[in-house]
Formats: sequence, structure tokens, C-alpha cells
Amino acid sequence: MYDRIKGFHDFYPGEMAAHREMIDAVESVARRYGFREIATPALEPTEMYVDKSGEEIVEELYSFTDQGERDVALTPELTPTVARMVVVKQQELSKPIKWFSTRPFWRYEEPQQGRYREFYQTNVDIFGSEAPEADAEVLAFAADALTDLGLTAEDFDFRVSHRDILGGLLASFGRDVDTEAAIRAVDKSAKVEDAEYYGLLEDAGLTYDEARQFDDLLSANDLEELVEFAGTNRVEAAVSNLRAVLAAAEDFGVREYCTVSLRTARGLDYYTGVVFECFDAEGEIGRSIFGGGRYDDLIESFGGQPTPAVGVAPGVMNSTLPLLLQRAGVWPEEAVSTDYYVLSVGDTRPVAAGVARELRDLGHVVEADVADRSFSAQMSYADSINAETVVIVGERDLENDEVTIKDMETGEQTTAPVEEFPPEVGRPTHEDYE
Amino acid sequence: MYDRIKGFHDFYPGEMAAHREMIDAVESVARRYGFREIATPALEPTEMYVDKSGEEIVEELYSFTDQGERDVALTPELTPTVARMVVVKQQELSKPIKWFSTRPFWRYEEPQQGRYREFYQTNVDIFGSEAPEADAEVLAFAADALTDLGLTAEDFDFRVSHRDILGGLLASFGRDVDTEAAIRAVDKSAKVEDAEYYGLLEDAGLTYDEARQFDDLLSANDLEELVEFAGTNRVEAAVSNLRAVLAAAEDFGVREYCTVSLRTARGLDYYTGVVFECFDAEGEIGRSIFGGGRYDDLIESFGGQPTPAVGVAPGVMNSTLPLLLQRAGVWPEEAVSTDYYVLSVGDTRPVAAGVARELRDLGHVVEADVADRSFSAQMSYADSINAETVVIVGERDLENDEVTIKDMETGEQTTAPVEEFPPEVGRPTHEDYE
Repeated sequence: MYDRIKGFHDFYPGEMAAHREMIDAVESVARRYGFREIATPALEPTEMYVDKSGEEIVEELYSFTDQGERDVALTPELTPTVARMVVVKQQELSKPIKWFSTRPFWRYEEPQQGRYREFYQTNVDIFGSEAPEADAEVLAFAADALTDLGLTAEDFDFRVSHRDILGGLLASFGRDVDTEAAIRAVDKSAKVEDAEYYGLLEDAGLTYDEARQFDDLLSANDLEELVEFAGTNRVEAAVSNLRAVLAAAEDFGVREYCTVSLRTARGLDYYTGVVFECFDAEGEIGRSIFGGGRYDDLIESFGGQPTPAVGVAPGVMNSTLPLLLQRAGVWPEEAVSTDYYVLSVGDTRPVAAGVARELRDLGHVVEADVADRSFSAQMSYADSINAETVVIVGERDLENDEVTIKDMETGEQTTAPVEEFPPEVGRPTHEDYE
Repeated sequence: MYDRIKGFHDFYPGEMAAHREMIDAVESVARRYGFREIATPALEPTEMYVDKSGEEIVEELYSFTDQGERDVALTPELTPTVARMVVVKQQELSKPIKWFSTRPFWRYEEPQQGRYREFYQTNVDIFGSEAPEADAEVLAFAADALTDLGLTAEDFDFRVSHRDILGGLLASFGRDVDTEAAIRAVDKSAKVEDAEYYGLLEDAGLTYDEARQFDDLLSANDLEELVEFAGTNRVEAAVSNLRAVLAAAEDFGVREYCTVSLRTARGLDYYTGVVFECFDAEGEIGRSIFGGGRYDDLIESFGGQPTPAVGVAPGVMNSTLPLLLQRAGVWPEEAVSTDYYVLSVGDTRPVAAGVARELRDLGHVVEADVADRSFSAQMSYADSINAETVVIVGERDLENDEVTIKDMETGEQTTAPVEEFPPEVGRPTHEDYE
């Protein structure tokens, strides 16, 4: 009768269980690195994105006017929100500020495999450090999250670049180049034909020959050559910063996942330093899996004190990361699991309820009859929820002060004294009472 | 520079840590009862709420037209969405279907203490059982969640009513009464003056005398008297169903939290059977903490097969439940916690990074320097994040192949051989090396 809206997705329990396992793994790594959870509004002032995020985001905004005549937008990304939050409490927050959160975002894009209009990211950010260790820690978090999910260096590749190498190089052509437009062109270079790419660079202010030369320099990934070509302190400093980040990444155990790739640019305007994107090392998933980078000027542009920042945001639901895990064969099983089903037959509800209650108090996942159904209907339901053990509380068993314990895998069953089941600790199974 | 939108809230790490502890407790109880996590869209077709939720919700909808000319609304509640999802997969889902999820919802209401325009609920629902055990299990989940949070029977009260007792009683007046309007009047009875309440009942079709009589019957909470007054099978069946739910609640260990309270009605139109609201037993928080009930007709009205349903939705963030926990003195501490800070001084980054890495692999929350700061700046930062232990990796210590372990509470410190720190398991503290 009602249809789900295009580009949105319903997660039923089996599919959700796999995603939950993935999100728990990613968040667990974030917590171990000392990132602290925050929670943030789904609506923000539209102008925040118009001013800060660049045209790529603004075209895709879900925005509207609310009942109080406010121009609001469904948040298409987290970065402007956390920048706003840092500004509000910049005096009282001790630095570096390390935050994470997992939540949905919304962009009106054309849906395709691994791309929805509603998608979930785990955003991880460090504010207040310009040191290369901060960039490297963000890379280390991302790599640890992926390896904890079962991926290896054979599966993924961080393509690392530097916005100020790109910007410095563009400046060295000595023209009035629209740097943001040129960098957006680089960001699109892998997705469009060369002619279109060069055209975009020309639109940004380079001549065709300069565009070719610029792209040749990027494609070569030769940092020495770049420094020499540009001959400016700016490019030299940017290259030196990129090298320092890679050296810290070496100490942090994540250098092996990183490749210098200057044609990686990221689409958003606010990046300033090191940027990176994660790709499928086997190339089966053609698009970027996720990305991140440094945005040192954003907080100040929000009216805050100058505060360097760097972050990354793996997409954890309705995104390409699940596709990568599936491609690599490490996607968790899409199924629910159940420790016990307490099957009640006849007038045994008080005892069955007590058994279920005690098993739950031990921390187990326990279902019991809530539909007043027959033995066989309950047994087939227990099977459908993958119950490991069924505890049968029947009238005849209870006459002997016993319950029946059935192992659902082998089908074997035995009895246990109701006084002793469950014991005070542990996860009793059929074997314990054989 | 940019302001947060009115009625929305930013959760910084300390406040979030307390909310996370609460949400984890509520979700843990839901999982132990065998409720399965789902995830659902933030946008749904506006007409779904216009048709199903009743005017209370529709007036408060954040709705707009998207770029594809769809009339969409930010979800103000979960129930219509899960009804839609049940209809889509009604053939393949084994019943009873037991789902839960925690997520934000949005309603354009006037903000007040414990009420925001964005609020988070943990929704818990059972579909496919009309048995009183299903109602009782929902009550049991809710009570267990509250007691696991540290509340006792002295702190909260479930006021239990039955929609069909109200509806049957209204029908027994023999007039053409607008049942939905009359029930909404009952729902408002505690919030408005008696005159307004009776006026609303008159608007719904009762005479003033009937309105008084109706309210007297509700206020008395005397089920026998009600059955006698109405003299219909409908009211008799409804009373019998309410009693069966309370009997199951007794077996499930939650009867003690329940009071029959027929003036409790719930504001939404789709409820059909038992409904209940949780209140502060001390009355300090005047408004309902959360509520739930049975909605047996909703799935069919969505075009599905007749599927009875019952659910509850504790508000877990931006809601009154945190206020109740605070009032009862069981609100978790609003602070972050840190197991280790690895302090690096001099040229020791590779060793410090290795120590941090090993501690994280043991599952601990570990921060290390990412801002290239002095000893004292790092120590004061470690203090600000409530680090329990600081591991100092200094150049001089390393000359002796040692690190220094400092207990941040006592200030005591000792050294440990770097080869032995950390050990392969456990959570080593200062005492282990004294």
C-alpha cells in the first residue's frame, strides 16, 4: 500500500546482523584509539553547506523550509556539524579533540550499486593537531578497522595525496587559476574521459598544454620532480609534510597500505593537506570505498580559533564498504542467532517464564512462546531463529521436576532437574546433562 | 557563525557516554528477549502518517517535496514504517516477528524540558501474536530495561489501560460517538482542565452528563462495574483480555510495576487493545516517560494479511527517561574514561607507537601523542581524559630498555622492562610492576 522511497533501504534482521557486526568492529577500533562518541542533529542550516561544502554537495541537498521559516537541510555529511560544535566549546574542550559517531546522511544522488540516498558513515576526526602523527593516526584507525574486519593488504589500498601539492603546483603556472575548480577536475579525472578532464582544467584557467603538463606531473607521482618543477617553498613544504605523514604511518604500522597517488583529490572544497581514498586493491569495485583528509581552515572559517583538523568516514551501511567485504569473502553471515528457545506445552507458563528469565539474567539470547502455539509450531519457530538449544517445559517433565534439553544441531535430547537448570553461571547445553 | 537549529541537541562526549551506557543497557535487554535489530529510513511518504497516525502527529510533521516531486516526511515515529516492512515480507518472515531499533525521530513541537524536536527511541515490537503473553512480554522488556538501569518499583509505574474497554464503553452509550476523538480527549484528560476535557468529549458526541458518567467510570478503575454498566460482550471481552495480560505479566515477573488506569489512553489512533504509559512513581516528572500498546489492525490497513501487533518505545535521548534516571539518582557519570595514555618524549615514537598498538590489541582504550607536545602538556591532557595509567616512553628509560608506568590516581610510578610491557594478556597497572 505504501512504497519505500527510492534510494532508501529497509534493513531486516539477517542483513542487519551482518551490518551490526561490521559497525561494532569499526566502532570498537575507534574506541580503542580513544575517539569519543558524539551524537549530532539530522538537520542543520542550509547555508552551512552552501557556504562550506562546495557545489558537489549543495546540488544534492535535501533542503526545505520548516514551520518556523528556517531554511534547513538533512545533513549530507558530518564535517560542517563537528566544526560548528568545536567552535561552540572551543575554550573548554581539551585538545586534541578526538570524536567519532555512526549515523545516516542524505544526498539526492542517482542510486546505483553501493550508493543510496540514505547512507551511514562512521566519522572519525581529530581537531587541534597539525602534526603528521594526527594524519597518520587517522590512517591507522582506518587500516585497523579494515583489517579487524578481515581484510588484508591484498584487499585494499589507501591512495594518498596532498591538497597543497596540487594547489602549489597550480599556482606555479603563474596564472589566475580557480584552484577549487581545478581540484574538483582532478577528483573527477578517473570518472570522465581525458578530453572532458582537460576541458575542466581549461575552464579552471589552465591552457590545454598546461593541463596536459599538470596531469603528467600528477600521474608520474614523482615527488622530487614536482618540487623541482614548481620551485616554490609551498610545494616543497607540502611534499615534506606528505613524507612526514608517511613516516609516521610507518611507525604506526600502516605504511604498507598506502600508495602516493596525486590524482586522488577528494571532492569537497574544505580539504587543505593530506587527503586519501581507500580503493579495492583488486579493482573489482571501481569507485572509492571511502576517504578522508585534513581540513585545517574550516574551524576558523566557522568563526572559531585556528584549529587544524583531520578525519575519515568509512561508509558502514548503504555504501561500498560492505561490497568490498563481500568481494573479499569476509562479509559476516546474514542470519540471526539464538542461544535458547524455551518451549512451553500445557499449563507450564510460570515455570517456563522463570527458566527464560534466569537464562536472560545470565546474558543469553532467549525466546519463549508468546503466541500460545503447539509443540510442533514452536519447534519449527525455534528452528527458524537458529536456536542452538531448546528447553522443553512440558507438564509430564514437570511432574518429575525435570525439563528436557534438546540440541538443535544433532537433535539429541536429555533431561535436567528443573532445580538445577539453569545453573548460576555459564551457558548450559545438552552435553552438560547427558 | 552557524547556530544549531532550535529543538535539536549536540551530544558532546561526556553527556554521550552516559547516554551510550543507557542505550547499551536497553538494547542488551531487547537482545536477550530475542528482539532482532532492524534499520529503517528517515524519510517516508507523508501520506502514510496522514492516513494512519492521527492529527496529533500530522500537525507536527516535518514534511516537504523532494527533488523528484515526492511528498516526504521525516519519520515522527517508527510504527507505520515497521507495519510497511511487515507487509512487504509477510510471506517469508516466520512469526512471531520480534524487532527492535534505536534511532532518531522528528516532530515539530514546542521544546520543553525533556522534549526536543529530534528525539531518539528504542522501538520494540512483536507482530503475529494476539496472545496476552505478547503484551506481557513487551511490558516485561520495558520493566527489565528500567530495572537494569537501576530503577526500582518505587521509581516507576506502568499505567495500563485497554482501548477496547474505552471504545466499548463509548459504544454502550448508544450514540454516534467519534471514538477516536473521544479517546484523544481521554489522552488529554490529565493535561487539561476538566471543563475542556468534558467539552472535548461533548465534541465527540456525548452529552455533558454522559461525559461525566464516562469519566467517573474510568476514574473508578473498577472493572466489574464497567462490565456491568456496559452490559456488552465487547466490554466483557476487553476486560477479560486486560486481566489475561496482567496474569501473564505476573508469570513474567512484572505485575508489580503495573496499575490499571483507564484514563490512560495514548494519543495515536491506531491502538486497539492493551495500552500503557510509564510514569515517574514519585510524580516529580509530570509527563509520561514513554508508552506502548497493541495495534492489531494497522498491518491489515496497510494492505497486509491480518497481523496482530504490540510494541513499546522508550525514549533514550532527548526524552524524559534520562530525567527519570537523574531524579532517581541512577544516571551514569557524564565522563569519558581512558585505560592508558602512552606519553612519548624525545625520539621514541616507534617504541611508543608499538606499545600503544599492543595495548589496543588487548582491547584497551589507549591514547598516544598525536600533537608533538611537551611532557607536561601531554600529562595534563592525560589527566583531562581521565587516563587511569600513563606509560611514559622516554629516551633515558629506553636506554635501559624500560618504560615508566604511572598510576594517575595515586601519582606513584615505577619502571617496567619494555620487553615485558604490555604482557600478552590482561590490563597491567602500576601495581603489577612495583
